[in-house]
Amino acid sequence: MSSVQEMKALLTPKSIAIIGASSKDNAIGNIVVKNLIESHFEGAIYPINPKAPEIRGIKAYPSILDVPGEVDMAVFCVPAKAVLGAAEECAKKHVKGYVIITSGFSEIGHEGAEVEKKIVEVAHSGGGRVMGPNIVGVLLNGSKANASFAPCLPLDGKTALISQSGALLISLDMNTFVRHLGASSMISLGNMSDVDFADCINFYAEDDKTNCIGLYIEGLKNGRAFIEAGRKAGKPIVALKSGVSAHGAAAAASHTGSLAGSVKVYDAAFKQAHVIRARDLDELLDCSQALALQPVMKGENICVVTNGGGIGVLSSDSAEAYGVPLKTAPADLQVEFKKCMPDFGSAKNPVDITGGAGLKGYEDAIAVALKSDWVNGLAVLYCETANTEPDEIAEGILAAVKNNGTNGKPIVTCFVGGFKCQAAGKKLIEAGIPFYENPDKAMRALSALRQAALFQEEGIADDYVPAKDVDQAAARAVIAAARADGRSVLTEPEAKKVFAAYGLPVGKALVAKTEDEAVKMAAEIGYPLVMKIVSPQIIHKSDAGGVKVNIKDEAGVRAAWKTIMDNAKAFIAKKDIKDAAIHGILLQSMAPLGKEVIVGSVNDPQFGPTVMFGMGGIFVEVLKDVTFRVAPFSQKTAMGMLPEIKSYKILQGTRGEKRLDQERLSEIISRISQLVSELSDEIAETDANPIMLYPEGEGLAVVDARIILKKK
Amino acid sequence: MSSVQEMKALLTPKSIAIIGASSKDNAIGNIVVKNLIESHFEGAIYPINPKAPEIRGIKAYPSILDVPGEVDMAVFCVPAKAVLGAAEECAKKHVKGYVIITSGFSEIGHEGAEVEKKIVEVAHSGGGRVMGPNIVGVLLNGSKANASFAPCLPLDGKTALISQSGALLISLDMNTFVRHLGASSMISLGNMSDVDFADCINFYAEDDKTNCIGLYIEGLKNGRAFIEAGRKAGKPIVALKSGVSAHGAAAAASHTGSLAGSVKVYDAAFKQAHVIRARDLDELLDCSQALALQPVMKGENICVVTNGGGIGVLSSDSAEAYGVPLKTAPADLQVEFKKCMPDFGSAKNPVDITGGAGLKGYEDAIAVALKSDWVNGLAVLYCETANTEPDEIAEGILAAVKNNGTNGKPIVTCFVGGFKCQAAGKKLIEAGIPFYENPDKAMRALSALRQAALFQEEGIADDYVPAKDVDQAAARAVIAAARADGRSVLTEPEAKKVFAAYGLPVGKALVAKTEDEAVKMAAEIGYPLVMKIVSPQIIHKSDAGGVKVNIKDEAGVRAAWKTIMDNAKAFIAKKDIKDAAIHGILLQSMAPLGKEVIVGSVNDPQFGPTVMFGMGGIFVEVLKDVTFRVAPFSQKTAMGMLPEIKSYKILQGTRGEKRLDQERLSEIISRISQLVSELSDEIAETDANPIMLYPEGEGLAVVDARIILKKK
Repeated sequence: MSSVQEMKALLTPKSIAIIGASSKDNAIGNIVVKNLIESHFEGAIYPINPKAPEIRGIKAYPSILDVPGEVDMAVFCVPAKAVLGAAEECAKKHVKGYVIITSGFSEIGHEGAEVEKKIVEVAHSGGGRVMGPNIVGVLLNGSKANASFAPCLPLDGKTALISQSGALLISLDMNTFVRHLGASSMISLGNMSDVDFADCINFYAEDDKTNCIGLYIEGLKNGRAFIEAGRKAGKPIVALKSGVSAHGAAAAASHTGSLAGSVKVYDAAFKQAHVIRARDLDELLDCSQALALQPVMKGENICVVTNGGGIGVLSSDSAEAYGVPLKTAPADLQVEFKKCMPDFGSAKNPVDITGGAGLKGYEDAIAVALKSDWVNGLAVLYCETANTEPDEIAEGILAAVKNNGTNGKPIVTCFVGGFKCQAAGKKLIEAGIPFYENPDKAMRALSALRQAALFQEEGIADDYVPAKDVDQAAARAVIAAARADGRSVLTEPEAKKVFAAYGLPVGKALVAKTEDEAVKMAAEIGYPLVMKIVSPQIIHKSDAGGVKVNIKDEAGVRAAWKTIMDNAKAFIAKKDIKDAAIHGILLQSMAPLGKEVIVGSVNDPQFGPTVMFGMGGIFVEVLKDVTFRVAPFSQKTAMGMLPEIKSYKILQGTRGEKRLDQERLSEIISRISQLVSELSDEIAETDANPIMLYPEGEGLAVVDARIILKKK
Repeated sequence: MSSVQEMKALLTPKSIAIIGASSKDNAIGNIVVKNLIESHFEGAIYPINPKAPEIRGIKAYPSILDVPGEVDMAVFCVPAKAVLGAAEECAKKHVKGYVIITSGFSEIGHEGAEVEKKIVEVAHSGGGRVMGPNIVGVLLNGSKANASFAPCLPLDGKTALISQSGALLISLDMNTFVRHLGASSMISLGNMSDVDFADCINFYAEDDKTNCIGLYIEGLKNGRAFIEAGRKAGKPIVALKSGVSAHGAAAAASHTGSLAGSVKVYDAAFKQAHVIRARDLDELLDCSQALALQPVMKGENICVVTNGGGIGVLSSDSAEAYGVPLKTAPADLQVEFKKCMPDFGSAKNPVDITGGAGLKGYEDAIAVALKSDWVNGLAVLYCETANTEPDEIAEGILAAVKNNGTNGKPIVTCFVGGFKCQAAGKKLIEAGIPFYENPDKAMRALSALRQAALFQEEGIADDYVPAKDVDQAAARAVIAAARADGRSVLTEPEAKKVFAAYGLPVGKALVAKTEDEAVKMAAEIGYPLVMKIVSPQIIHKSDAGGVKVNIKDEAGVRAAWKTIMDNAKAFIAKKDIKDAAIHGILLQSMAPLGKEVIVGSVNDPQFGPTVMFGMGGIFVEVLKDVTFRVAPFSQKTAMGMLPEIKSYKILQGTRGEKRLDQERLSEIISRISQLVSELSDEIAETDANPIMLYPEGEGLAVVDARIILKKK
């Protein structure tokens, strides 16, 4: 069975057993039975209890093995120490879904984690999947199954909400009624011993009751599966990642036992996974609302229709802040809008039909916007006034949509006002039109709809095709030699050989073992050149006086040889380094000055090899102006990294300078992503720093290289 | 009468006339009378109507001059063309407040602006002040006066809400009931022909019914009065400035006829005015809620008590984002918290008393937090769970506060859940404890309370004392000479003389008129030196080949003289400049290399002379990494600018370099602020660029200077 089929068995159950069903009113094993009854679960309910003949009027069984029919889902409410035994029985019964509410596993330490692992093995042996442990349960509107201890099924709707935090899930369950945010399901993931975000995304991508997937993420265990699932889903996904502050990450770690990754790596991974990032709980739910109810926004032109200039200006501010700035409407469209408003209105966009505008003004202006080819998305804003009724305005919006069709354009609304506005909002949402109480939120929703369209345009594939002109074997040989030497840090010449094997321009470089050899090699390489000490024990070569630049002739080579050797020996002596090895001195042609850039990689605990790019020197060190992508990825994706740094203008050419060679740069970034992926079993970190980047068509040169191997 | 006394007469009226009171039900002149009756205004109501004997049962008068008693406020509902005449009658009657609802003045163009100006003159002649025109009116809970066409007085409370947009004001009026956000008054400012934000701030600063002032600002007319009023208020002020996007600014301009200033200047001005900046409508109202109900937060330690790890982590993320990061609670405090929770809870902060925690858990943990000396502010978060009642938790919070006192600490709450949470929230707010539906908002509220405390600590005075060792007369003489020469751009030597008169280190510089004179001056100045063309027609000296650097001897001086003169003449010829004047060539000692910084000034249309600071070169040009303050200001304020730039680390010393001379730098910035203020009648813009900044104790050197005069 594929993962999706397994998840389907788990999330559309026809029969549910409650392991540890209890007769005691407040016991979770009783509440789950009660919740299944009250949610009108249409399938079979099997309370499992060694003694009780029935629970809440439903026949109970001493063991799951006594249940006559098949069991799709088993909800575990027994104490932690009883879970493994019960799981073994479930495996014999070939239960498909193990929903383990019980806590006390990996979140409390190593021992718990071991048991958790065994439970998953047992479940898999019987063809089942495990949800949890340490969860609230699952709430499935499609199956009318409240298989949880949350009080009721959420308001029915089109968003699948998946949360790593159980407490948050319960509170959001009840919050769906306040916000009128309909959920097809709510899933509590807890410790994610088996089923994780990727599994859920894979399932809900194919679930036709679900238009949008909303995630609350504390940490991922398999980041790459997450990226793949998100990208493949082809359905809007919005996620709130918590633990992004230093202090918050610490709190998250103590809470779920999973590591919180660096914010910037998550930002990159979300982009690659086609996941829209929410900054707080409101954004998660507000964007989910829009993504579930409305089509994506297929172009960049937002039209705002408003009866108040103030909220119009605020919407314009927000639109720009969210990266979807408003534009002035074309002249012919302005002519049409002008017909819908008094003289002192504004047709420019925001289209201000003024405070006197009632039902008709809104209907007319919305009709114009919906019919216009220029408009790609519409926000209808309304300030409650003394002489208009919010309910009438809502009716006007609905009538305009009904009469004109939306032509595939998304619509969102915002009413600022009192209780009548809230009532109107409920009516709009029930008719499928998102409603917000603040123009900022309406614009955030439209920006999410735009982002979703851009993700769709990007398509599922990243276009990554590994370069063929690479010599993986050569790179591995260099690494093997260093390993044989007992080292986990490559010397600069070694790192350059590895880079060269993947097609990176590292320049001509030779290692001389004697002064005379250096002179000979210098002649071969050509002047001017650079000389650098090669010693596994001297990592920061400049600090040790081990680098001389701009050497112009033989005399220079000889002088540099002496100085570097003397300095290196003094350094080793001073630092009292035992068994220091000096491999010689590296000679390389001196790369002409260019703009310094850095490409590096780390091995992220959640996403694996991840490539970083930034401008060199002060930009990285002071401004931390860098961007990431999870490796491997295409040159096209690498091109997308460049405008993300604040200093992008430098790559575009400042002060009349030529545009730099972004094509070659992005190719190199993609090649490094290939290198660190293909050698991910060996490489922990790399640094190509600095790279001298030259104007368009003139390429670049990797001046220094560093590779750190994984500890083995 | 002082401005405050005048405002008091206007905003605590005992008698109100309605100019243009009408018998027609839907006319604004009828609605205002109705609203005054329905809001139970306790003073006299005088409808003014040339024909009707009574309006809504109240005796009407043909003219305000016929009213028997004094009239504190006149609300104008007559057409635009009738306003001036009516105002003249009001002046005769010595009406104190002119609330001009009528629109059709400066917002529609020059002619309207002229009439508006006359109305103000007339009002002032009778000792009155004008609110508007183009407004909704004023809503005063203190006087029970709904002198507006908004439907009712807002929910009574402690925030004064002042809005430039009328439509927004009406909608917020009704919104106060939804949010339970009490307002002492709501003021619509409209065109601000007379009464502006500063006047309102001055009044509400002394109004004991108002704890917090909330502003919606589209543009200011007198920015400096605003800064002074805000700073003097000593009461929390929070403001939403709209029109911060390029497109939004355009929309605002067409809407209220006032210019929207640059975002960064507003940011600076708000800091100087002690105004907390809200990013959107929710922030404005959420922060107002907290600032009106709670004391400011006098230290930086926030304690979060929560029953859910998820919202705890989210609160930690938000706290960091808002600049008030959570810190781990001290060990002894953790011991106390541990007593309030099960073993698997966390006492570190967020204090996670876990999902099982009910009333008692909250009461105990809150009591610990309130008693602790370490805790400066408290956020109580609650996720609705299956086995707790939101109302009980609210009761627990109130009991804990009642039993322990708050010891001057602010408390905010956040409940995530359903309708029961909303009801609990209402109860909390009514008891004076701010309530939010999202942890992000709770942390934003605490950050505002912290900011308000920091503003209070800063005090009213900026500590600005003009430096005495300046020679204003000398500076003015240089400017007068340039004016006499018909110029509005000073040459570099002139600009440096002006700077030198204000104590800026511009280095030794002399202007030679002949080659031989240059040689003599060079010997006097000393080598190495720089030579630059001096010509009012050559502004960009380098581009014209008019600069030579690093000149080391007499031969160099002579060579440079020829080259520069040839280049300058060629430049003038090529550009076909008529009447070009070459004053000579400037010789100056070459400043040693330092870190380049820029200090400049502009003349902001709303705030007047405003000083900018940033790191030079790429930082300003590519990253726009600059910060502003409205001039003049103290060295202490200038010191506060430095950490605001992203490249601040460079000033602190990167890569093992010494900390730069921030003391001298800030002194220079303050001196420039003095210069541009004292000469604000003459100077439009200045640039000290670059300034070479040296390590601590070694000062700086102004390498190039530029001053542009105001057009006269």
